[in-house]
Amino acid sequence: MGRKYLREPTEPIEVRSRKISELTDAMLKTGFQGRKLAQAIEAWSAMLDEKELTIFMGLSGAMVPAGMRKIIAYMIQEGFIDCLVTTGANLFHDIHEALGGKHYIGSHTADDNDLYKCGIDRIYDVFAEEERFRDIDHLIADFAKNLDAKNYSTREFIHLLGAEISKKGEKDSIIVSAYESGLPIFVPTIADSSIGIGLMLARRAGKSLPVDVIKDVDEITQMVEKSKKTGVVYIGGGVPKNFIQQTEVTSSILGSGAKGHDYAIQFTTDPPHYGGLSGCTFEEAVSWGKVSAAAKKVQVYVDATIALPIVSHALQEKSKKRKKVDWNSTF
Amino acid sequence: MGRKYLREPTEPIEVRSRKISELTDAMLKTGFQGRKLAQAIEAWSAMLDEKELTIFMGLSGAMVPAGMRKIIAYMIQEGFIDCLVTTGANLFHDIHEALGGKHYIGSHTADDNDLYKCGIDRIYDVFAEEERFRDIDHLIADFAKNLDAKNYSTREFIHLLGAEISKKGEKDSIIVSAYESGLPIFVPTIADSSIGIGLMLARRAGKSLPVDVIKDVDEITQMVEKSKKTGVVYIGGGVPKNFIQQTEVTSSILGSGAKGHDYAIQFTTDPPHYGGLSGCTFEEAVSWGKVSAAAKKVQVYVDATIALPIVSHALQEKSKKRKKVDWNSTF
Amino acid sequence: MGRKYLREPTEPIEVRSRKISELTDAMLKTGFQGRKLAQAIEAWSAMLDEKELTIFMGLSGAMVPAGMRKIIAYMIQEGFIDCLVTTGANLFHDIHEALGGKHYIGSHTADDNDLYKCGIDRIYDVFAEEERFRDIDHLIADFAKNLDAKNYSTREFIHLLGAEISKKGEKDSIIVSAYESGLPIFVPTIADSSIGIGLMLARRAGKSLPVDVIKDVDEITQMVEKSKKTGVVYIGGGVPKNFIQQTEVTSSILGSGAKGHDYAIQFTTDPPHYGGLSGCTFEEAVSWGKVSAAAKKVQVYVDATIALPIVSHALQEKSKKRKKVDWNSTF
Amino acid sequence: MGRKYLREPTEPIEVRSRKISELTDAMLKTGFQGRKLAQAIEAWSAMLDEKELTIFMGLSGAMVPAGMRKIIAYMIQEGFIDCLVTTGANLFHDIHEALGGKHYIGSHTADDNDLYKCGIDRIYDVFAEEERFRDIDHLIADFAKNLDAKNYSTREFIHLLGAEISKKGEKDSIIVSAYESGLPIFVPTIADSSIGIGLMLARRAGKSLPVDVIKDVDEITQMVEKSKKTGVVYIGGGVPKNFIQQTEVTSSILGSGAKGHDYAIQFTTDPPHYGGLSGCTFEEAVSWGKVSAAAKKVQVYVDATIALPIVSHALQEKSKKRKKVDWNSTF
Repeated sequence: MGRKYLREPTEPIEVRSRKISELTDAMLKTGFQGRKLAQAIEAWSAMLDEKELTIFMGLSGAMVPAGMRKIIAYMIQEGFIDCLVTTGANLFHDIHEALGGKHYIGSHTADDNDLYKCGIDRIYDVFAEEERFRDIDHLIADFAKNLDAKNYSTREFIHLLGAEISKKGEKDSIIVSAYESGLPIFVPTIADSSIGIGLMLARRAGKSLPVDVIKDVDEITQMVEKSKKTGVVYIGGGVPKNFIQQTEVTSSILGSGAKGHDYAIQFTTDPPHYGGLSGCTFEEAVSWGKVSAAAKKVQVYVDATIALPIVSHALQEKSKKRKKVDWNSTF
Repeated sequence: MGRKYLREPTEPIEVRSRKISELTDAMLKTGFQGRKLAQAIEAWSAMLDEKELTIFMGLSGAMVPAGMRKIIAYMIQEGFIDCLVTTGANLFHDIHEALGGKHYIGSHTADDNDLYKCGIDRIYDVFAEEERFRDIDHLIADFAKNLDAKNYSTREFIHLLGAEISKKGEKDSIIVSAYESGLPIFVPTIADSSIGIGLMLARRAGKSLPVDVIKDVDEITQMVEKSKKTGVVYIGGGVPKNFIQQTEVTSSILGSGAKGHDYAIQFTTDPPHYGGLSGCTFEEAVSWGKVSAAAKKVQVYVDATIALPIVSHALQEKSKKRKKVDWNSTF
Repeated sequence: MGRKYLREPTEPIEVRSRKISELTDAMLKTGFQGRKLAQAIEAWSAMLDEKELTIFMGLSGAMVPAGMRKIIAYMIQEGFIDCLVTTGANLFHDIHEALGGKHYIGSHTADDNDLYKCGIDRIYDVFAEEERFRDIDHLIADFAKNLDAKNYSTREFIHLLGAEISKKGEKDSIIVSAYESGLPIFVPTIADSSIGIGLMLARRAGKSLPVDVIKDVDEITQMVEKSKKTGVVYIGGGVPKNFIQQTEVTSSILGSGAKGHDYAIQFTTDPPHYGGLSGCTFEEAVSWGKVSAAAKKVQVYVDATIALPIVSHALQEKSKKRKKVDWNSTF
Repeated sequence: MGRKYLREPTEPIEVRSRKISELTDAMLKTGFQGRKLAQAIEAWSAMLDEKELTIFMGLSGAMVPAGMRKIIAYMIQEGFIDCLVTTGANLFHDIHEALGGKHYIGSHTADDNDLYKCGIDRIYDVFAEEERFRDIDHLIADFAKNLDAKNYSTREFIHLLGAEISKKGEKDSIIVSAYESGLPIFVPTIADSSIGIGLMLARRAGKSLPVDVIKDVDEITQMVEKSKKTGVVYIGGGVPKNFIQQTEVTSSILGSGAKGHDYAIQFTTDPPHYGGLSGCTFEEAVSWGKVSAAAKKVQVYVDATIALPIVSHALQEKSKKRKKVDWNSTF
């Protein structure tokens, strides 16, 4: 009577010359997080085959210092995502690198007091120069001083900033790629970053540029309202995850008929049992109506710096460039 | 030659009738996270003895549904903290309960699709009624509709909302206690919560009430600039942690002479090795100048729902009420 | 229609003077791991009220260096457990302390190469002297040299060693308390510890004392076979957990009618999603017949050095000494 | 003055067609656990280039049900390891599959009580038939009944069992590959597994076959004593890790001049801060003399089911078959 549970055997992975996506396909027949990683690639690949699906990515964690910048830029350029919600820090670091700045290979066991004395900031095992970061703080402050004194959603502000950086920065940058693709970037936590510090420096210098994050709620909700189906990919958790999740609640309250996202993928290292939103399961999200009960749902417990290189390369082998929508022109 | 390392033996805990703070004092002689928990209480207690110290608390996670609301209210009332940075969700849930709403004892293994059909939201092992939450969404929208159409920092908006709730809500509420104590609450992620949804409903109804989070950066930085010494207590990580951490960077850029926080405590379940800010060590923070190299620094890896009851009761036994400053009147 | 899910509201913890068990009782009305901790105390307390229940404790992790020794000894003396399965290290460190040796309060950020040069071993934030440990290695080797050259289960060997230590060691020791209570201690991983090293030194010195771990499987299975009901408490996971879990499988194969343990509590920091036995849920254990579907099951994600002091003191306040069975005389 | 810290910039990963090892080489220039994974491959590759190095692998976790069996067999066959310390479960499941048994693709959210009623065991998201497992229990019991009644180290017993399985089992099995390569497998936790259950069934049937785990301590220590240099690779933690780690302590006590392992790699999901051996850092191991201060040391926080496929394929591309030593003939 256990037959129903014994449909498909696992298959031990064989070691042999093969492509990345062939290996991840083989991992579909294994167990634990290795299988989940393969299932996430399968689900994302299925999303790319959908005709009328809007894909939202939530990106948290210091992904740019950790070398993930061009992977995100690639995903924007290829149409693997349609909207990005991220932290101010990721964009700040992206601008820093786009303009020629560097992060450095460091060590997580360095002497932090000596680093401080040397003006070096540590991000786990990556180093950066505080002075170069401050150059960018001032660049943002100066840019803000030249903008019209009106309310901006973070999306609008980032779009304008992207236009500016695109004039002199590297093309394989997140903010430049997004600008050129018309892909909206929302930064609901902009105050909590060096971009926020830059804007505050402008404010103290007499140029108050209000950033209206409620306008962002409005705009991202419009995207959901205009989309036939939606899929979500979360790199980490934090505000980017919930900000995208709550669009379904908001549009449900507004009566726009939302029934939960149709695909949901997360790469995270947060377990569910501490009750936080970052680690909560997509099953829990079903109870809220944030994710559809029928949705393909995959959560993988893995550091994003392992997942992103593998997943992006597997998708590159498996999937074709996808048509892009210039969402920025729709608001 | 190892003598320098062998100064003080550990002492096995004996089981006997004693007060909570006597037990945590005994835990100072143990090891691992048990000792850290005891050291966190010792450090917080030392903060309360300081004459000119401003204590900032960062509070993330769904602490109110998990029954931690009155502990935070108590800490505000007793002067155990001077400023709170938290999520919109915690305040939303606080208002819900202050006005008589409930959260319910649930199960983390419930059937989420059935919960959805029943209109029940799950937060790990706590349940809530979606309809009652929507009542509060509309209450916030209606409140917003009656405010002057100008830019507000989240602190200003929450202060005004606190005044409103204090008229009809329970006293042992976070927002009411803060209102009555003049304690500033910053919610830099307000857009990412049901309060943000409420404000967006007002916006869609024609009443745009811009929330200017850059003004928050300015105001919290003023608090640091006006404080002789600063201490920080983080319940979880997320934006509340970094938003307080970065005040030291901001005031350093402004030349206000910041040298890093003088005390730093965190209760978290995030390990440092995934490179995220939530889990990064206070040693890493030293490299950035966010925490002083000389600061008393304690990080405890534990769920806040275990830490907060123990810590608050131990402090209640050990510490006297502390003089409060009406910071809200200083902006 | 969601009424069935909304039976009991959570109740915010109030901060006031109270006993430890009063606080943990209040935590029953909260959420997340705080509630689980309270439920674990409630379940253990219920076990102590059962008339014909045998309680097995699995104890892993360096609990003795971390100051938990007398808590375990207390639980043995009061009859809070009937059988202990633990690591060689915990007993080795217990003997070390029982004979006057010390562990020391250290730091997890110490310079390990300097520690090595100084002959200091580090266990996270606890230090010990390598030379004093080697004294105990030789003590165990010498003790083994004087035993009859026959096969011993680890239980038998530990019982004999306990008799020896009881002649000169402190009473509040784990091995001495067990010896005096007739409580069996199984150490299926004895080879993987300094006790194993001691026995190997005896072996190299010509005195081979075979430790037959299969005899242990036989003996602990007998305990289950003779018990009407069984309860399990796991401090951490590892071999101690599975060795107790598998007794139900073994006795089922033998046709002894086992139906799974009747109570199951675990304090652990291992999440289930990596597929390991240490972190697997008691629900998973139900599928194997290791735990009864009807059993009271509580898993708490928390460091044992936080859980054990709280739980032992709450039980001390709530529960009476329990009648002990001299199991060692039954084999 | 921070120049010393800013030697090598990180380099963002570019997404393009490339081999697995080319991708992992690129990951050497990133940060966090992605870089660590790449460094682990680099360190293992360096081990394979060493002339007189003995490589010990510690393997814990249910790796065979999760599809990792042929990867381990491959590593044995290619000489990527010289000795294996693992759990009884991994060998039991290996024998099960070598003889045609299967594990099945399951779900971590299955109904465990129904699984129990159907005779299906769950290992996170993998299923197995309890009855087929019992067949193997009896096969092992029967095999044991035919052995001479003398003391065996687990290595000896597994070697004999490997000879038996090699007669009828698949070649790409762990136990068969090891048998045919003369590679020693130690199972210090044999009692804590279905192999232990099998031996206990033989014992209850009158054939007591003592397994002397102290003899294992002797034998593995001999391997270290006879090796010029040693390297260790840990898949997970548990007893397999410490059993290999402690060989350096044992040989130091015996005066064999051990100075700590020369290479050390671990793939784990256990953080260090709970004080357990599974998660403790190799820096901590330096204080004990288990790992040399000069050793190349890499710890990667990742599920082994993700790491093993990537690492084995990268090594397959980069490294040549290594000369094998028939260690089993040296005891």
